[in-house]
Amino acid sequence: MNGHNNRYPVAFVGAGPGDPELVTRKGWRLIGQADVVLYDALLDIEGFRQAAPAARWINVGKRLGRVSTAQSFISKTLVNLSFQGNRVVRLKGGDPAIFGRLTEEIEACRSAGIGVEIIPGVTAASASAAELQISLTQRSVSRSVTFLTPRMSKSGSLSSQWVPAAMASDTVVLYMAGAELPRIARALLDNGRHPQTRVAIVESASQSVRKMVATLQYFSDSRPITVDGPVTVVIGEVVNSAVEAAPLPSQHQTIPKAWAR
Amino acid sequence: MNGHNNRYPVAFVGAGPGDPELVTRKGWRLIGQADVVLYDALLDIEGFRQAAPAARWINVGKRLGRVSTAQSFISKTLVNLSFQGNRVVRLKGGDPAIFGRLTEEIEACRSAGIGVEIIPGVTAASASAAELQISLTQRSVSRSVTFLTPRMSKSGSLSSQWVPAAMASDTVVLYMAGAELPRIARALLDNGRHPQTRVAIVESASQSVRKMVATLQYFSDSRPITVDGPVTVVIGEVVNSAVEAAPLPSQHQTIPKAWAR
Repeated sequence: MNGHNNRYPVAFVGAGPGDPELVTRKGWRLIGQADVVLYDALLDIEGFRQAAPAARWINVGKRLGRVSTAQSFISKTLVNLSFQGNRVVRLKGGDPAIFGRLTEEIEACRSAGIGVEIIPGVTAASASAAELQISLTQRSVSRSVTFLTPRMSKSGSLSSQWVPAAMASDTVVLYMAGAELPRIARALLDNGRHPQTRVAIVESASQSVRKMVATLQYFSDSRPITVDGPVTVVIGEVVNSAVEAAPLPSQHQTIPKAWAR
Repeated sequence: MNGHNNRYPVAFVGAGPGDPELVTRKGWRLIGQADVVLYDALLDIEGFRQAAPAARWINVGKRLGRVSTAQSFISKTLVNLSFQGNRVVRLKGGDPAIFGRLTEEIEACRSAGIGVEIIPGVTAASASAAELQISLTQRSVSRSVTFLTPRMSKSGSLSSQWVPAAMASDTVVLYMAGAELPRIARALLDNGRHPQTRVAIVESASQSVRKMVATLQYFSDSRPITVDGPVTVVIGEVVNSAVEAAPLPSQHQTIPKAWAR
């Protein structure tokens, strides 16, 4: 611990997809040196705690409309803990730079004169590709991969801002989109993506994973999907070489409640 | 060591951006259990060797037209080493699924009846964002990020296949594109990207990094860039909040041979 004029930088550490073994060695080391760790909803918090059993662990997670801690509160807490002389680690799921709401927290630190250090992590797209044993880019099949999140308007209609990026890229990975997949699939079909385009859903990559591969047409016909953990959706020709996930459902069958685990 | 009928799966491990501390804990553990490690051109091979000093380390790296080992030779070597009963790790820069030519090697293993395991890694885009202290996605600024590599035809003209994906996405990260940046910047301007769009170049993220931020207009006017290490280019409004890299060059100044380190 030290005083106001000699603060430690706040370390933003990418936790990776869930398995505590998929954090980087550097991230693990910095957690081990922390006095306080602020973390999001993580799948295996006990696994991460082993890096720093004596530290104070504070859950500030937000997920899928469950318990939500306001972003401004998180930023204030980071700053206050740092001012108190703590070595603070802000542990964020996946990679902090990808759908991690990093900027707000960095700016709060900068405004308070606190330095920051960012330790990148494995993003969910990479972890999902590893589970499917595919590449997201592949010579003569896909030279581009786009990560995006399709925001829905409150009225329930699909915002269309994400569509051009999803149409222009060979491979598309959707974050935070599992339950909305039928509507997303219909929007892509309406805009001209081929109905037989392969789509993979991966839930909780790296930890009690569930995965399923079907066609865009199939998902456009199906009921909304029940998801428990974080989901990524991979769309494109690269999915063709995925290892067997749940068996390809027939065209008009709805998605089984329990996928293959 | 064991025989033909009891082979170990080949582990494809993402090495991350360069710093051996940015490999995952699981990747490091698997390297430590390997009899043989096949690796690409890595920035700090001595650092990685500490995970498995007694293993056989084989360089099969290809980079920027230097020493190149044919892909088919790498696949054959993987299969042969596995058939000989070795625990084989295939260590690939960044994340194996992103511009890692993973598919060819996986398929060679599968054809030979050898199982594979994939350990994802930190991709260069994430490491570059960490160096710049930016998010690649950012609420109300960027809801999509595209990774792509603009291939050049042998005649020197820029292939245009990559342009639609680069235009449709809010943030674009170019892999293996440093030396071609002036032509890339001109193609984006010709297609309507704003001349004042911020562009960051990051060389050797995580290890002796060099970084520079300027505008698309600036890079379109500049001479080809001399690069020593692997380079990523980040384009989009998210770059506006980057920490000071090399000072923003004036409009008609060419890129300094040595950027800020």
